Amino acid sequence: MIIIAEKLNGSIPSCAAAIASRDESYIKDLAKRQADAGADFIDCCASVRENEHEVLAWMINAIQSVTDCPISIDSPDVSAIINAMPLCHKPGIFNSISGEGNKIDIAFPVLAKPENSKWQIMALLCDDTGIPKTAEKRIEVFDTIMAKAEEYGIDEGRIHVDPAVEMICTTDDGEGASVILDVMKHIKKTRPNVNISGAISNISYNLPARRLVNQAFVVLAINAGMSSTVLDPLNKDLRGIILAAEAMIGLDDYCAEYVSAYREGVFQ
Amino acid sequence: MIIIAEKLNGSIPSCAAAIASRDESYIKDLAKRQADAGADFIDCCASVRENEHEVLAWMINAIQSVTDCPISIDSPDVSAIINAMPLCHKPGIFNSISGEGNKIDIAFPVLAKPENSKWQIMALLCDDTGIPKTAEKRIEVFDTIMAKAEEYGIDEGRIHVDPAVEMICTTDDGEGASVILDVMKHIKKTRPNVNISGAISNISYNLPARRLVNQAFVVLAINAGMSSTVLDPLNKDLRGIILAAEAMIGLDDYCAEYVSAYREGVFQ
Repeated sequence: MIIIAEKLNGSIPSCAAAIASRDESYIKDLAKRQADAGADFIDCCASVRENEHEVLAWMINAIQSVTDCPISIDSPDVSAIINAMPLCHKPGIFNSISGEGNKIDIAFPVLAKPENSKWQIMALLCDDTGIPKTAEKRIEVFDTIMAKAEEYGIDEGRIHVDPAVEMICTTDDGEGASVILDVMKHIKKTRPNVNISGAISNISYNLPARRLVNQAFVVLAINAGMSSTVLDPLNKDLRGIILAAEAMIGLDDYCAEYVSAYREGVFQ
Repeated sequence: MIIIAEKLNGSIPSCAAAIASRDESYIKDLAKRQADAGADFIDCCASVRENEHEVLAWMINAIQSVTDCPISIDSPDVSAIINAMPLCHKPGIFNSISGEGNKIDIAFPVLAKPENSKWQIMALLCDDTGIPKTAEKRIEVFDTIMAKAEEYGIDEGRIHVDPAVEMICTTDDGEGASVILDVMKHIKKTRPNVNISGAISNISYNLPARRLVNQAFVVLAINAGMSSTVLDPLNKDLRGIILAAEAMIGLDDYCAEYVSAYREGVFQ
């Protein structure tokens, strides 16, 4: 499982406050702790209305001063991501493109350049209508993105797809998480080299005991093919249940990885 | 989810000690607490070498003195179960029959009697060779049991099938829990009225942080069709993740049952 650590995000109130006061120690502390906990990428999202480039630059520098874990530059503005890429010491994740507007046609020419060939790409399955209601429509967005990737010569193994994990509490009759899980299964079957990703905790928005909803969802998502995820790597129960789920679906013979992660203190 | 409460079992050391010393308060306390926590049946397993009838009678009386929750009489000896049935104030679960020896031909004529028509039946998918290694062989045992049930006029809705949940830590290359889950999916597809059951915690034997392995398994089992389970109803996280998993697969519109169980304190 590729772990994209979620905690440095200006949409989280304590992080927003740290950004507003330019509290570098907050950024450094969470960057280091998430990296030490085994993050593969540190997500970096400013979530500001103004000066996004300056804030991203400040955050990226703070992160890179304490860890060499690569960064996932997270912004709804693809130009902001493109401008921040040269600040990164290592290739990270371009987070994100989608079917919205001309995002792809701005991002893919940059990502197709040889010097950026090691950058990975998060693709969110929404378009100008928002997040499509049905699995079929999300798969149409996926197909459009993949056709563009081929056109620009971008290898599918660089792409992480977020099928748009949304809160389950408002889904309709008998639907549950099936739209998200069906999209994942479809991608797993048709494009096995694409990383299936998503922000786990979105599923439990507005529900009590969110940790249990998140845990149930991550198990089903792994079963449906998820191989990359945006989560809090400091959440030991979530880390443990991911490893347990991987053992259940036959990805961990004799539970060897599960047991060694336990011994290393990844979970308790 | 039909909950069969597991804690009154002589194979658990503290319960064995309570049985040995005829500590009635131990039995009553756990019977009451499990019933209060929402158990649908209280499992009652003596696990003694001698005097099983006397021990079962003592346990059943103690349980019935504090709760009217029906009892799952649990013994490897079908005659011991048959002898204990008349002690129960209400029809419960005959736990268990299997493909071993002549268990079915002793049990089914008794269970087919009109006065026993409300007794449910746990069927364990093992035979004289033990627990078959493959899903195919377990399904053969299942088919044999179901053919016998038809022969004796026992409605399939009375049957709970335990596909023989076994520890995952010794499974072979790439197998995970697939044998168990494949059997569940097959039964769900071919006999949707049969209750798919199993003892959750067997899966995690010999592993650390068993609660996480149990949680991951129960989510996948529910996804595969599990509708009945032997577990500790006092385990709030397990209760919560079961409700969360049911919401995920579309069994709980708007998460209404999940939210109301949370409000009632089933989980936290």
